[in-house]
Amino acid sequence: MKIAVAQLNYHIGNFEGNLQKMLDAVTQAKEQKADIVIFGELSTCGYPPRDFLEFDDFILKCEDCVNRLAKESNNIAIVVGSPVKNPVPEGKDLYNSALFLYEGEIKQMQHKALLPTYDIFDEYRYFEPASEFKVVEFKGKKIALTVCEDIWDVGNENPLYVISPLDEMKDQHPDFIINLSASPFSYNHANNRIDILKANVDRYGLPMFYVNHSGAQTEVIFDGGSLVISPDGKIHDELPYFEELVRCYELEEVEKGGIERTQTKEKIALIHDAIVTGIKDYFGKLGFKKAILGLSGGIDSAVTAALAAEALGAENVLAVLMPSKFSSDHSVGDAEQLAKNYGMPYKIIPIKETYDAFINTLSSHFEGMPFNVTEENLQARSRGVILMALSNKYGNILLNTSNKSEMAVGYGTLYGDMCGGLSVIGDVYKTDVFALAEYVNRDKELIPVNTITKPPSAELRPNQKDSDSLPDYDILDEVLFQYIEKTQGPKEIIEQGFDEKLVARILRLVNINEFKRYQTAPVLRVSSKAFGMGRRMPIVGKYLS
Amino acid sequence: MKIAVAQLNYHIGNFEGNLQKMLDAVTQAKEQKADIVIFGELSTCGYPPRDFLEFDDFILKCEDCVNRLAKESNNIAIVVGSPVKNPVPEGKDLYNSALFLYEGEIKQMQHKALLPTYDIFDEYRYFEPASEFKVVEFKGKKIALTVCEDIWDVGNENPLYVISPLDEMKDQHPDFIINLSASPFSYNHANNRIDILKANVDRYGLPMFYVNHSGAQTEVIFDGGSLVISPDGKIHDELPYFEELVRCYELEEVEKGGIERTQTKEKIALIHDAIVTGIKDYFGKLGFKKAILGLSGGIDSAVTAALAAEALGAENVLAVLMPSKFSSDHSVGDAEQLAKNYGMPYKIIPIKETYDAFINTLSSHFEGMPFNVTEENLQARSRGVILMALSNKYGNILLNTSNKSEMAVGYGTLYGDMCGGLSVIGDVYKTDVFALAEYVNRDKELIPVNTITKPPSAELRPNQKDSDSLPDYDILDEVLFQYIEKTQGPKEIIEQGFDEKLVARILRLVNINEFKRYQTAPVLRVSSKAFGMGRRMPIVGKYLS
Repeated sequence: MKIAVAQLNYHIGNFEGNLQKMLDAVTQAKEQKADIVIFGELSTCGYPPRDFLEFDDFILKCEDCVNRLAKESNNIAIVVGSPVKNPVPEGKDLYNSALFLYEGEIKQMQHKALLPTYDIFDEYRYFEPASEFKVVEFKGKKIALTVCEDIWDVGNENPLYVISPLDEMKDQHPDFIINLSASPFSYNHANNRIDILKANVDRYGLPMFYVNHSGAQTEVIFDGGSLVISPDGKIHDELPYFEELVRCYELEEVEKGGIERTQTKEKIALIHDAIVTGIKDYFGKLGFKKAILGLSGGIDSAVTAALAAEALGAENVLAVLMPSKFSSDHSVGDAEQLAKNYGMPYKIIPIKETYDAFINTLSSHFEGMPFNVTEENLQARSRGVILMALSNKYGNILLNTSNKSEMAVGYGTLYGDMCGGLSVIGDVYKTDVFALAEYVNRDKELIPVNTITKPPSAELRPNQKDSDSLPDYDILDEVLFQYIEKTQGPKEIIEQGFDEKLVARILRLVNINEFKRYQTAPVLRVSSKAFGMGRRMPIVGKYLS
Repeated sequence: MKIAVAQLNYHIGNFEGNLQKMLDAVTQAKEQKADIVIFGELSTCGYPPRDFLEFDDFILKCEDCVNRLAKESNNIAIVVGSPVKNPVPEGKDLYNSALFLYEGEIKQMQHKALLPTYDIFDEYRYFEPASEFKVVEFKGKKIALTVCEDIWDVGNENPLYVISPLDEMKDQHPDFIINLSASPFSYNHANNRIDILKANVDRYGLPMFYVNHSGAQTEVIFDGGSLVISPDGKIHDELPYFEELVRCYELEEVEKGGIERTQTKEKIALIHDAIVTGIKDYFGKLGFKKAILGLSGGIDSAVTAALAAEALGAENVLAVLMPSKFSSDHSVGDAEQLAKNYGMPYKIIPIKETYDAFINTLSSHFEGMPFNVTEENLQARSRGVILMALSNKYGNILLNTSNKSEMAVGYGTLYGDMCGGLSVIGDVYKTDVFALAEYVNRDKELIPVNTITKPPSAELRPNQKDSDSLPDYDILDEVLFQYIEKTQGPKEIIEQGFDEKLVARILRLVNINEFKRYQTAPVLRVSSKAFGMGRRMPIVGKYLS
């Protein structure tokens, strides 16, 4: 039996586009004489479709997509993911299902039982969990169909669910496992995924075909990395990351085992590739080609520009240098050098006139009040307005250049440097931004070394440095990581050896700046806990604040 | 048996504050010789605590609050809502529970079974549903304890859940039902609530004590309206809306029935009171006193200013008039009149100088390109920057004045008029904004009549009117209501008699402007479907767009 794994980049709600991609993959699989072709979870509509699922019209379009796909299933079985209506009035109105199409019709459906409802996932918002489990019999084989999370509760000391779908199917003696996934990237996810799959293969002694999405849907990035695991626990194949492809396997070969083929996994390289994918798909799926961003000479905007240039082509990234009287000489020089290194178009637009106009307009209202954060913000907002005006006039999407460390502690100006349609490095701590810069420069100096080596500064007042108001990034990032990714409280973090007052100060800064993050652009998610839809915090709270 | 209902305004994560409020209520209940005092759902930590629930430290503080409350339960039973750890490793780590405290200890716990996970609710994100149901025996009575949603599946043709907690307890023959709720306001919610409670009382033939929160937590507003229902289906009492109070009832009197006491329910009055509560608590719970807003002479900012004045006192609302060359004479006059009517401080700050500075700074980059939305946005953004500068300098929170109709179709400038820490009328359609203005003026002309009667205009180009680019608000609002609140698709809306092209245009505008709403301030929720956390849509989608 020959099984084709189709790792595709879907587009939410783009039914014709998704269907066409799947039909092309069916054709490829047929050419290779595959018996079965497998797509990802909710592949008809893309993942996550979110509240579009509440529209009957949307579900009808998913059904139509399945029916048109079924028509092509005469000589090949097609396993597709789609929302399916729950015929029973009790419970949620939909299931998240794997549909087995063959001989022109839907032969069988297996609904998802374990519905991830944490981090970015909201599946119980829409779906009823499966209560029935039945293997699919096909050409003398029994297939256990599962959907994503259905296999993620195995090998977990603190499981999220009280049942396990594969346990329920065990007595039906399946021959192999198929899993349709939409499992988003984070830099440590590929190894987790392999561990979980191996735990399943180990527990049930069966080969597994795991099919993931590739490509990005706004903030959520799918890395592909689909897997075929042999019963001996060997990784028979791991598909490339961030690519679309169809690849066929002989079941008998997979059952034999003994072969191990994996992709290399290096944190910074993976983050780099994920962000490039995220930018490319944000623009491509929205129908835009060109980006704009402010280039300060600092490392955040330099790395953002570099990633954008890789994603969109340097010619499509317009860099704008907006010096003020507080900008140091090297700022403009470093920024200009970066633009030249990439061959990126750039403009120099000083903010003196607009900043002075605000100061003059407001002078009588500010009388007797000292220069403070207001004037700093006025510089950042002058830049924000200039960038948005160019964005409006030229039709370029503004990229936000804030990093995760500053977003965490609120070290940024709302409607100023926090402007932008997409936050490129908002899930990358400052220490990792430095590592990304080194990675960008791995073959030659694209980001000027001076940008990397000089002390970080917002340059909004004379001789300002980040270290004037923030702890060293090494310490700050570690405390933030413990609080944000690891959900450790103050006690646990202090027990790790961090200063009590410093921890209290950092956690307070994170919590009192929730209002700023609420209004931030979507952040390309590369860690296990990014700001945005995956981290839901009250604004009006009084906890550690 | 005497039962005290404590309808309180909690504050998320403010454990000491919440505990003190509850202790005061216990004292009041004891003075009135109550046998039981009942608080709301998750009253230890406030609702919704969101991802704070993922912090062990946060749960320990909830437990501490329960324990300190239990110490006061020697002569009175206390029913409190709190998150409780799930001792079993399988399933989610927490329960959402009603705890029955008596004689200094936790006598019994009933976990919530039906976990709302739709609209603004995310309960399955955190909580395991109850699987055991046991009435509480107290002073010869059997009490069925339920938490909020547990009673909401009765009398529903398309129930969301497959079990019903009260059905599970029926055979234990309870004498009455207690329900701890945190059930947010929407203008049609009070009647829904009464219908649901009556359906329960009708089904089980038991009196019910339903205790809700009052007050606002960022966008979510609780109206109180706690209810005591007699077995004959009569509303023995409905507590006032948007107030905190403790009131006692003799169970025997409630059982007798025959008495009906309700609150008046008028849509616009309720929306008005809800928004005033929302503003008051947003400021109060964040520790702020003063607001600032731009006053254009138009109806949206006028209504926003009026509501803010009621919430905070007119002296705490700074109005800023920012005319441009496109402003009509009446704009400044109408705005000034409004400020004078309220005795609100105001400033007139023309935007000419800052707008001209942007145009001059950008002129060489805009050469040969016609005046378009860019220049319109530059005016809105000049105003946004001025308002934020005053907000920063004075410490006033900027109120956003966008209405729901324009937020829906993207008729607003990101980082311009869409600035602000709180969206006051972002869940009120334009047609209802007019009704709110009339309501504000019910006793005397506070909002100048000219502001209400003149055709709406953004005044960003000569003789501009909203009707130049938008359908009439009567039609627009009805189509938006069908799409947003009623989740009707294009086919269903067209079948209601709306023009096909118009419907397609409106739905497209809603969907392509998701990116703007993503960066909008939290919106005070007054309808059954507000923009924000209750409506989760993809940005990069291709559905009806």
